[in-house]
Amino acid sequence: MKKTSTRLADGRELIYYDSRDDAVRDAEDRRPLPHGETLSELRHDPVLDEWVVVAAHRQGRIYHPPADECPLCPSRDGRLSEIPEPDYEVVVFENRFPSLATHPHPEQVRATPPHVIRPAAGRCEVVCFTPDHDASFADLTPRQVATVLEAWTDRTAELSALPGVEQVFCFENRGAEIGVTLGHPHGQIYAYPFVTPRTERMTAAAAAHRRETGRNLFEDQLAAERVSGERIVVAGEHWTAFVPFAAHWPYEVHLYPNRRVRDLLALNDDERAEFTHVYLDLLRRFDLLFTAEEPGQEGSTGGAVNRTPYIAAWHQAPVRHGAGAREGADELALHMELFTIRRTVGKLKFLAGSESGMDVFINDVAPENAARRLREVKP
Amino acid sequence: MKKTSTRLADGRELIYYDSRDDAVRDAEDRRPLPHGETLSELRHDPVLDEWVVVAAHRQGRIYHPPADECPLCPSRDGRLSEIPEPDYEVVVFENRFPSLATHPHPEQVRATPPHVIRPAAGRCEVVCFTPDHDASFADLTPRQVATVLEAWTDRTAELSALPGVEQVFCFENRGAEIGVTLGHPHGQIYAYPFVTPRTERMTAAAAAHRRETGRNLFEDQLAAERVSGERIVVAGEHWTAFVPFAAHWPYEVHLYPNRRVRDLLALNDDERAEFTHVYLDLLRRFDLLFTAEEPGQEGSTGGAVNRTPYIAAWHQAPVRHGAGAREGADELALHMELFTIRRTVGKLKFLAGSESGMDVFINDVAPENAARRLREVKP
Repeated sequence: MKKTSTRLADGRELIYYDSRDDAVRDAEDRRPLPHGETLSELRHDPVLDEWVVVAAHRQGRIYHPPADECPLCPSRDGRLSEIPEPDYEVVVFENRFPSLATHPHPEQVRATPPHVIRPAAGRCEVVCFTPDHDASFADLTPRQVATVLEAWTDRTAELSALPGVEQVFCFENRGAEIGVTLGHPHGQIYAYPFVTPRTERMTAAAAAHRRETGRNLFEDQLAAERVSGERIVVAGEHWTAFVPFAAHWPYEVHLYPNRRVRDLLALNDDERAEFTHVYLDLLRRFDLLFTAEEPGQEGSTGGAVNRTPYIAAWHQAPVRHGAGAREGADELALHMELFTIRRTVGKLKFLAGSESGMDVFINDVAPENAARRLREVKP
Repeated sequence: MKKTSTRLADGRELIYYDSRDDAVRDAEDRRPLPHGETLSELRHDPVLDEWVVVAAHRQGRIYHPPADECPLCPSRDGRLSEIPEPDYEVVVFENRFPSLATHPHPEQVRATPPHVIRPAAGRCEVVCFTPDHDASFADLTPRQVATVLEAWTDRTAELSALPGVEQVFCFENRGAEIGVTLGHPHGQIYAYPFVTPRTERMTAAAAAHRRETGRNLFEDQLAAERVSGERIVVAGEHWTAFVPFAAHWPYEVHLYPNRRVRDLLALNDDERAEFTHVYLDLLRRFDLLFTAEEPGQEGSTGGAVNRTPYIAAWHQAPVRHGAGAREGADELALHMELFTIRRTVGKLKFLAGSESGMDVFINDVAPENAARRLREVKP
């Protein structure tokens, strides 16, 4: 495993992750890129008591470019992309249109009380999973997944060490139906300068569970699913994937290591090795959920057309833990939540009034049926 | 104002609201409808500590019927719809495919601990705003809006009195882009058997604000917006509409009565009268936001094609208040939140990884710019 860090023409960091220790990555970015300026800011919503990122400069970002102008392909045949090398395995770089930036614009931090505003400090990175534009994560080999996992793990360590970063979130949005603007297989990493509302609720629930039972909430849930079995999708030696009892989405799978750990850094070699197989198995099952042909979609989504759109979200404990950290921060168990917004062939699950207005989800697919279907479809 | 209650062939309640006191509504539902059975259930998500409605029977519900089979048009010319009369002004009836039902199926209340399940008690109603299939709420006259407001108010009173109902939510989803399956102008009312997660967060924030300042959170926010003025869209004598400082959506307007009240029942005649004008003004401004022509959409959305998709959500205080109610329940101020998922012509705001995974919203439109644009577009 070799890691090579370099800088793009506008000063952004780019890091190659290579399985070969002798990989040489020394190409320079020869594009005449101006240094970007991030005009994001964090605004506090007092009614919901949460931060909103206002990133007005992002309206102009690249939207469904043609495949031959893909900024995530390697630089080849005289065409210069975000990645200077003519090839790569896995590469991570700072987003050119970041919502959160290492050096946010200093003008943007004023507000008249009672309004509260702060700089959108943090970092947004792009992770390219493969140089193959038309592939999908599910097409990777286990060895390639291992390199992606290395990259996620390394970035979690590096970003957690940045001043002010409170939470690191690795995720993938896949499919035009979810708003993905670039078809090239890639994910993102957000380093937030606060603990996110979702994680706050999870840690609060886990802290309450500890007070009431003396046990860990996530361990109890995983144990109950393994005993029941009816919502299990994949039961590995080191990982378990199940549809949660109160799934919010039509097809939603939570993937936990059987041994509770707080973040990606804490996974051992056996867990890492099995993850590559279990995760590919899950993604391939997702792609088989809706097999009937659907009309082609607009946009340069390459191989992703007609495959199941999904969001894959790594939940990790907040950066600050141990003595002095928020109650419940040490309870959070690393896991991935994988879900699709598709309900059935040709139909999406929309977040309408009940979900978007009141946070009450209505799920039209019984979790037991979703699990059965995911077990039945064999990649 | 006259209210006429009747029963549909399968036992569901239907209520006509008429501005004329001499309206006669005595047509019978002559369809051979079987009595429906609701298989919804409420499942508790222990990790987020919230209820999810699992409504697996709803997958078969009517999806984009052709206009001549619209179930929300009056029954005319030999075609029988959900509304037995050949004409109506405003009509409310129990949803044929409800997520929450007055008599939920008793089989559905068992779960093995630690999982918790309960009957999906409550009620889901449909509100038809006008018999005109091709109209939109924005096309109504102020007099028609007054009748809709009467219906919302009456339903809030009636549903609040049902055993077990904790919160009444009147809302409208408009536009196929938001997943609306029937183009006929209509809204919905949910009577939830719990206080929704959104309202819980609002009441918690308001309770904390009261403890810290001795004042009401919503009154303070409204006062600050009126002093600043830069995010005001409409400032009436009795109502104020503004884009919130930390708006989550590209175009989002909150409409408050200037006098804080807890629910629709508490509005006085002057407030009711002005609401009809202010709300129509807002909806018409929304429709002018994206005026460039876009390709027509599939489905029987009638007059809604190419108009701005939106969600309009009435926030009311929980049913239980006063002594013994949750802290903050009496702080909640009636208001409407109106927002669109459209970012700009041809582009939607998707809830991807950050929003759906971590509840962190990224808004690409500065609230001050959204307010300026909404002030500039003149209906």
